[in-house]
Amino acid sequence: MRISELSRRSGVSNATIKYYLREGLLPPGRATAATQAEYDESHLRRLRLIRALTGVRGLSVASAKQVLDASSAHQTDTHRLLGIVFGIWPSEAGRPETQADGPPEPSPEAAALIEAMGWSVSDYNPARQVIDQTLRTLRSLGIDYDWQTLLPYAELAARTARHDLDRLDTITDPLEKAEQAVLLTFLLEPALMALRRLAQEDESIVRYGDGPDAPPSGEARPPGHE
Amino acid sequence: MRISELSRRSGVSNATIKYYLREGLLPPGRATAATQAEYDESHLRRLRLIRALTGVRGLSVASAKQVLDASSAHQTDTHRLLGIVFGIWPSEAGRPETQADGPPEPSPEAAALIEAMGWSVSDYNPARQVIDQTLRTLRSLGIDYDWQTLLPYAELAARTARHDLDRLDTITDPLEKAEQAVLLTFLLEPALMALRRLAQEDESIVRYGDGPDAPPSGEARPPGHE
Repeated sequence: MRISELSRRSGVSNATIKYYLREGLLPPGRATAATQAEYDESHLRRLRLIRALTGVRGLSVASAKQVLDASSAHQTDTHRLLGIVFGIWPSEAGRPETQADGPPEPSPEAAALIEAMGWSVSDYNPARQVIDQTLRTLRSLGIDYDWQTLLPYAELAARTARHDLDRLDTITDPLEKAEQAVLLTFLLEPALMALRRLAQEDESIVRYGDGPDAPPSGEARPPGHE
Repeated sequence: MRISELSRRSGVSNATIKYYLREGLLPPGRATAATQAEYDESHLRRLRLIRALTGVRGLSVASAKQVLDASSAHQTDTHRLLGIVFGIWPSEAGRPETQADGPPEPSPEAAALIEAMGWSVSDYNPARQVIDQTLRTLRSLGIDYDWQTLLPYAELAARTARHDLDRLDTITDPLEKAEQAVLLTFLLEPALMALRRLAQEDESIVRYGDGPDAPPSGEARPPGHE
């Protein structure tokens, strides 16, 4: 396909595609004339992964290029490929491409939780720090949570992750799988948190009843829902 | 207690407490001299709820005052109290204190999902719009998700919400319950998403194996974890 069709099918502008070609994020097409080249499906898949990494994960173009190069080199190893696009798998230099220098900040509560769950998780997974930071914030506000309080949530997270990977299992092309992993992990987060809030409201009605006043949108409670 | 002790125990500065007193967010203390007043535990609880609403939920001081006034008026109705602090329960004027005018944007996919789950949810719950927006974003990027795809996640969200409300059930004071509801709902979100990412990494190892290279942090897989 010509660059104009590649642009139409990927949703990425002509000018941006040319910029990616100059920066080496996208390999050159097959030259058909002095100023024309043909692109194929591999270009389209790579463009979509670039868009996911720069748009959704928020990487710089330089970081995205490092991730893409590493992804291309490890297409046959799905676990490593996913680790690379999530930034939790070290590059040849021994460290994730997109992390600053220095060892990761210690996160003893995440480590205890991961051990209790029997999970295998890279020391570089940045979610470790998020666990410890969140618990520190809650305690500074007087809520006495620790990693053990999070265990029931961790069990539910494990089921959520299985649903996530069920979806990825249906995809055979490795770069497409990497793209979908990024999109589903990052873009689904607002919806998952929204589902929790909807469920909280329902559970609040179940527990605390309809109170002195009926709710404003006043749907009748379906029978048998107690 | 004096204002200095109220400041120490709440973590809110003297100057901010005086500002809240002037703006009417905090009722005056019991005057003990021309320039002195005594404050009690109810002031402390109210200060903590103010901090949760303005700091964590990001409300303006004026919006927080409306929410506090409505909360105080409905302390005996826990479901309504929680609805008020989350901004999903209309005020006396018939609309949540913190929402702009006009009817909520239609969200047919959230409505279908809520009906399929048998949930009771206010028309004003802003999480409805998040569901429809997220699905539109995913589809615009070529991921064919609809509300039915979200059903397994909704089941897990219902269990998460039950854990959330189990915690609140242990609290008897209504304003403290409202404060903890806000803190737990908003502040726990990063940790819940972090748990999903940790679980995804583990599930990826389980499914796709250890590949040609061992993981960098190379913990041995515990026996029986397949």
